[in-house]
Amino acid sequence: MTSKRLPGGIYPYLVTPSTADGTINQTVLAQLVDDLIEAGVNGVSPLGSTGEVMYLTAEQRRDVVRTAVEASAGRVPVVPGVAAFSTHDAVEQARCYAGMGVDGLIVMRQAAFPTDESGVVEYFATVARAVECPILLYTNPSVLGADLSISAIERLADIPNVRYLKDASGNTGRILSVMCHLGDRIEVFSASAHIPLLVFELGGLGWMAGPACVIPEAAVELLRSFKAGDRTGALGLQRELWPLNEAFTTYGLGACIKAALTLRGYDVGRPLSPQQELGPAAIDVIAKAIARADAAVPPRQRMAEAIR
Amino acid sequence: MTSKRLPGGIYPYLVTPSTADGTINQTVLAQLVDDLIEAGVNGVSPLGSTGEVMYLTAEQRRDVVRTAVEASAGRVPVVPGVAAFSTHDAVEQARCYAGMGVDGLIVMRQAAFPTDESGVVEYFATVARAVECPILLYTNPSVLGADLSISAIERLADIPNVRYLKDASGNTGRILSVMCHLGDRIEVFSASAHIPLLVFELGGLGWMAGPACVIPEAAVELLRSFKAGDRTGALGLQRELWPLNEAFTTYGLGACIKAALTLRGYDVGRPLSPQQELGPAAIDVIAKAIARADAAVPPRQRMAEAIR
Amino acid sequence: MTSKRLPGGIYPYLVTPSTADGTINQTVLAQLVDDLIEAGVNGVSPLGSTGEVMYLTAEQRRDVVRTAVEASAGRVPVVPGVAAFSTHDAVEQARCYAGMGVDGLIVMRQAAFPTDESGVVEYFATVARAVECPILLYTNPSVLGADLSISAIERLADIPNVRYLKDASGNTGRILSVMCHLGDRIEVFSASAHIPLLVFELGGLGWMAGPACVIPEAAVELLRSFKAGDRTGALGLQRELWPLNEAFTTYGLGACIKAALTLRGYDVGRPLSPQQELGPAAIDVIAKAIARADAAVPPRQRMAEAIR
Amino acid sequence: MTSKRLPGGIYPYLVTPSTADGTINQTVLAQLVDDLIEAGVNGVSPLGSTGEVMYLTAEQRRDVVRTAVEASAGRVPVVPGVAAFSTHDAVEQARCYAGMGVDGLIVMRQAAFPTDESGVVEYFATVARAVECPILLYTNPSVLGADLSISAIERLADIPNVRYLKDASGNTGRILSVMCHLGDRIEVFSASAHIPLLVFELGGLGWMAGPACVIPEAAVELLRSFKAGDRTGALGLQRELWPLNEAFTTYGLGACIKAALTLRGYDVGRPLSPQQELGPAAIDVIAKAIARADAAVPPRQRMAEAIR
Repeated sequence: MTSKRLPGGIYPYLVTPSTADGTINQTVLAQLVDDLIEAGVNGVSPLGSTGEVMYLTAEQRRDVVRTAVEASAGRVPVVPGVAAFSTHDAVEQARCYAGMGVDGLIVMRQAAFPTDESGVVEYFATVARAVECPILLYTNPSVLGADLSISAIERLADIPNVRYLKDASGNTGRILSVMCHLGDRIEVFSASAHIPLLVFELGGLGWMAGPACVIPEAAVELLRSFKAGDRTGALGLQRELWPLNEAFTTYGLGACIKAALTLRGYDVGRPLSPQQELGPAAIDVIAKAIARADAAVPPRQRMAEAIR
Repeated sequence: MTSKRLPGGIYPYLVTPSTADGTINQTVLAQLVDDLIEAGVNGVSPLGSTGEVMYLTAEQRRDVVRTAVEASAGRVPVVPGVAAFSTHDAVEQARCYAGMGVDGLIVMRQAAFPTDESGVVEYFATVARAVECPILLYTNPSVLGADLSISAIERLADIPNVRYLKDASGNTGRILSVMCHLGDRIEVFSASAHIPLLVFELGGLGWMAGPACVIPEAAVELLRSFKAGDRTGALGLQRELWPLNEAFTTYGLGACIKAALTLRGYDVGRPLSPQQELGPAAIDVIAKAIARADAAVPPRQRMAEAIR
Repeated sequence: MTSKRLPGGIYPYLVTPSTADGTINQTVLAQLVDDLIEAGVNGVSPLGSTGEVMYLTAEQRRDVVRTAVEASAGRVPVVPGVAAFSTHDAVEQARCYAGMGVDGLIVMRQAAFPTDESGVVEYFATVARAVECPILLYTNPSVLGADLSISAIERLADIPNVRYLKDASGNTGRILSVMCHLGDRIEVFSASAHIPLLVFELGGLGWMAGPACVIPEAAVELLRSFKAGDRTGALGLQRELWPLNEAFTTYGLGACIKAALTLRGYDVGRPLSPQQELGPAAIDVIAKAIARADAAVPPRQRMAEAIR
Repeated sequence: MTSKRLPGGIYPYLVTPSTADGTINQTVLAQLVDDLIEAGVNGVSPLGSTGEVMYLTAEQRRDVVRTAVEASAGRVPVVPGVAAFSTHDAVEQARCYAGMGVDGLIVMRQAAFPTDESGVVEYFATVARAVECPILLYTNPSVLGADLSISAIERLADIPNVRYLKDASGNTGRILSVMCHLGDRIEVFSASAHIPLLVFELGGLGWMAGPACVIPEAAVELLRSFKAGDRTGALGLQRELWPLNEAFTTYGLGACIKAALTLRGYDVGRPLSPQQELGPAAIDVIAKAIARADAAVPPRQRMAEAIR
């Protein structure tokens, strides 16, 4: 079994727009996907941590993936997240989304009880073998309560469609360790917990994160200037974009992206209860971080209009 | 709105028996409920952490509750767990189980992102107001990644059907703090992380935990001897039962109860993947802990037969 | 080599009174020791965590022990703490205090780097073998960054003068586990993180903690009523004393005892820098907790006079 | 008051060589300092975490600084660590080392009890004001049990001789945050928890860490190739050096540097008790990591001779 490859680049983690009664606002999600593709992103990722995936029921998750696939309409890959405690549930999600035509899957493991490495490998391997599309292993100890050791990654990289890793630990040295141990057997995407430019410097394939949903043109320009060999320009731009990353870390992924896209004029609703909406001080910090990124790389029509 | 009260006493946390293809073994579950009631327990709690609730899909959870309610047939209260990240999902679970005729609900909150106290209170309060049956607030930071402050408990205790707390922190001083701050506004059940006899001494209402599913007669006898004022006997018995509590802590709730009930002769299957089955050394420790409890309080027919 | 035994009972953890220029106020310390002995305590423990031992230089520590031994004048045992990162330093402290005539030593291990169990055992065993007096093993993961496993305690209990354990983990189940595994090879003292009455119920030897320095008569009465078999009276008293324990947990041991003894009229100074003095709201909580304990067991002359 | 500036570059964290009876081996330390200077390092840092500073008595620490200052003989700056719980102790250490002629101080704060930001600032500010030499703020939550917030760093940067930060958190994004918030008010050194090349890319001043004590020529070459604009060469070299950083993280700083320098032929003794010596498997990993770095940048005479 060989699986297709994903192009590198900028993959915004999609917000999950919701209405007051808790249903998914598919109209807003479709519009956002369209706008992001217009802005030049290389793919979109629904159902990530930024998309509040743990807070969504199985049915809500399916609605989100279906909408993203339809809105993308084959223009860019759609790579949703699979998040589960049990292998059984993860396989069910993976098969369901694969059947909807997604181009890859970001597989997350949640944990309530400790599991040894053979259990961890069993989880990811079973999901990978249940589908044909490319698999990104995702690790984020602080959100998921579980981690992936380098030896577990090495065992999983033997599975043909396990091709990518998204590390959200914030420890950039870990990415270099993975690269040193795995070589070209796995390719790495940066999460928002890392400085994306530094992950590009190390040989990373791209940036998958919530901020790219808010400042897509700037994210695309960051990668373009790096590839063009303009290190000074890229570092300067990275510094202008960093306050938005900081805001995501400070205020929480779900709450921050909803505040940010509301500022951009998208009717994305409040974070899913019991998460709380951010207060005026936090929203002010986010608005300033967006304005700073916009000043460095002006966004196009729609997003530019909406922001105050 | 007034709600019925739950009787104090011994509430075994029920195992979730599963077959090789991952479906719930309802026959074994019904038999176990029947045996526990015969052994004298005061209620049963499906879908607790011991029941691997986070590893079950929505449909599997409903099957478990339905089976427990039918098997109990009104002889003792059935008090299942509600475990969710979002308020929306928790309310849906609560209403569903209430409609099946349960006698109370143990409400757990899972967390992926930090939430302030108003969010925490919103979650529990919304669930409590969505049903009429008594609500137990549950707190277990190490399994759920979230906690309940005493001031949050105080605000929740104003809701008429919020009547009980099950604390699984392992910090017995916290139980005394709750009692000092809340007085008779809330009653406390011990989890397996505490020494149940000491929670009884403090005025606790009973013991809700996995070990009681394995040694129901001994658990019932522990409470009986305490109530009869036989402190020496109760402390002696508590010491004989403690190694089984230790095993639950050491080996993980789901893996331990499945090993223990397999030893008792119940076909409960392996822990849900990716949890791993325990090895022979762990099973030996569990077998000895059971034997020690059985020597103190011999179990009746069925459970006694099965164990080697 | 046989060593003397320590009597069970109430051992206040002594404050370390300090003046504005950072020197130890030996006059106040001597007066406090005298008052505590008058109040009926069974021993005194300088240089505990409550005594801010980590914040004291080697010379300051010697001054404290010398003062405590002189003030006690053989009326009750003096059992100071030894706290060090290196075995070398711990042995030096232990020998020095033994030479000053102390009656036992509470040995704490601080850790900056992980050490396997053989290193942990080496540390405690080397200290124990360097002196003849009885040794209390102390474990408090949250303050020391290190813990003592039950198997390490078992290995250490083979050393003749290793006779006692003071557990400050807050997990009362751990004390029962130690008792089940060690039997009468080791005796256990309660720290302030536990409910002392429950540790007495389990067979504990006494209570060594900071609150006993503030409410010595009440602490003595708690143990007396328990020994007299008055369970109802003891539990009622325990509830009245608990708010002071809570204050120690909430506000930090060093800051809380200095605020409390200042309220009692002792010129103990502020917590050692960079610890900060408590604000008025915290001091008010502490004053109320003391008043509640005093109402249950009125203190004698000196302490009673001082408090507002 | 103006203070001198420290040159940027490579500052090896010095091992603390010790003999079997626990005394400091000053001969070996002096030889090592001489060899490192010959290898081209820009400064030396005794009494860091790698130098097991927490495990040394006050007198041992003074011996180490005196030896380093004498051996350096003014050829490169000597910048020792100050590590204390109390402000009083930290000031005493700082004044003592300043009197011995050191060129700067790395100030670490250990914590046993929580302290609010005003206490944290008080500690560092009081030390900085007590001496005239440049101050590096050091933050390493996992070793010290305490951290420095960005707002605390901002307040401290107003003190004229507070000029540098060494961040050992492993979170490289934090370094960019400090740079974004502080601008040129503070300059940053990389610790071994970061990838030094990436910290150079961000504008960092140098690398202060244990591995540079083992592979000084390679560390110097890494910085030289970066400054020469040879990004490809620098990244290639960084990859060859990374396994040694990994070994320091995996096996603990003190144990790893002692094993590594023993392999290099220095009689540095075992890690200070109760730390344990590494076993053969760990030593083999370290030997391979050194060999890999040596293959990339061959070390000079002395160090090259010793290693197998």
